[in-house]
Amino acid sequence: MHYAPISAHNRLVLASQSPRRKRLLEQMRIPFEAVPSRVHEHAEADNSIRLAKKLAIDKAIDVWPGSGGRWVLGADTIVEIDEIVLGKPNDEAHARQMLQTLSGKTHRVLTGFSLLTPEGALAHVEVVATDVKIKELSQDEIKRYIQTGEPFGKAGSYAIQGIGAFMVESITGSYTNVVGLPVYAVIKALLDSGALEGYPIVSSPT
Amino acid sequence: MHYAPISAHNRLVLASQSPRRKRLLEQMRIPFEAVPSRVHEHAEADNSIRLAKKLAIDKAIDVWPGSGGRWVLGADTIVEIDEIVLGKPNDEAHARQMLQTLSGKTHRVLTGFSLLTPEGALAHVEVVATDVKIKELSQDEIKRYIQTGEPFGKAGSYAIQGIGAFMVESITGSYTNVVGLPVYAVIKALLDSGALEGYPIVSSPT
Repeated sequence: MHYAPISAHNRLVLASQSPRRKRLLEQMRIPFEAVPSRVHEHAEADNSIRLAKKLAIDKAIDVWPGSGGRWVLGADTIVEIDEIVLGKPNDEAHARQMLQTLSGKTHRVLTGFSLLTPEGALAHVEVVATDVKIKELSQDEIKRYIQTGEPFGKAGSYAIQGIGAFMVESITGSYTNVVGLPVYAVIKALLDSGALEGYPIVSSPT
Repeated sequence: MHYAPISAHNRLVLASQSPRRKRLLEQMRIPFEAVPSRVHEHAEADNSIRLAKKLAIDKAIDVWPGSGGRWVLGADTIVEIDEIVLGKPNDEAHARQMLQTLSGKTHRVLTGFSLLTPEGALAHVEVVATDVKIKELSQDEIKRYIQTGEPFGKAGSYAIQGIGAFMVESITGSYTNVVGLPVYAVIKALLDSGALEGYPIVSSPT
């Protein structure tokens, strides 16, 4: 099957309201519309790769019926350390505990993403992993970081694209994957599946 | 010597007008003022590490006399592949040539940064290196990327924080170093030299 590619008149549907994911698609100049999914992020799976895949697919499928026959992209980001998945913090004590767990160690960030065709078939699913090395954090640093308010709403209680960058010694892999969407892999999947006919998108007169 | 730390009333002087460096300091909530230096970036040195160091120091020293007794940060970013330094492209043909050189290979991005005390003494100088793996680029991709206009004004003819992210398969090291300022190392240097008394900066009532 051949479907109309993504364009300003046929925007990609992003099954997410994450401001980080929206900013990444804007950075890449991909025309899109964000639609929140109602998928519960506390689903379970026997390992984190399967969990990230499952949530990415579930989110896209949830949003597809209202997508009006357009391509749909779903994604889910997981922070994992010593085989334990760190979610978003419930409160200050929870954020403090997670930051202490990450301190002085390397953890892994997994983003699963899925692409559905305009007819709702799964065109692509993939999980990308990035290793992130965090410096030793003092009690004062953790306290000050929590005071900024940034840890809340973030998996693992930090934002690599924010003030949290002060604790990131180095990464191995994709940076945008840690932010929420592995841009290199997503563009490749859009091209391979026919959702894009070329990249970068060259703007045509509209 | 003990000098007043950086604050909203005693802003860091950034010896650069790079919008990327400004954005990174904003991301880190460091109060600063950007002052352009008149240092010629085509200086020479026998190796790229010394060149990045020298330019970072030269830029800070150039700006210091007008800094009004404040801390001064200088920085310079160099893209290097096979011991050749890639500057900013002069024109389309030059950009095409650089992108072909980077295609399918891993190159190194070096950012040198220097910190001067309010009295103009060198408090810190350091060069941080990040390895960047670029995908195989087709002629069509290079042509389209140049058409976006993004390569111009960028060392190595690409912007990792822009559309150029589509070609970055992975990195090893600091991401912000590739953008223009290695945030983890800079914050550490500011703390070690007494330019900051704690980080993250906790906003006090002013």
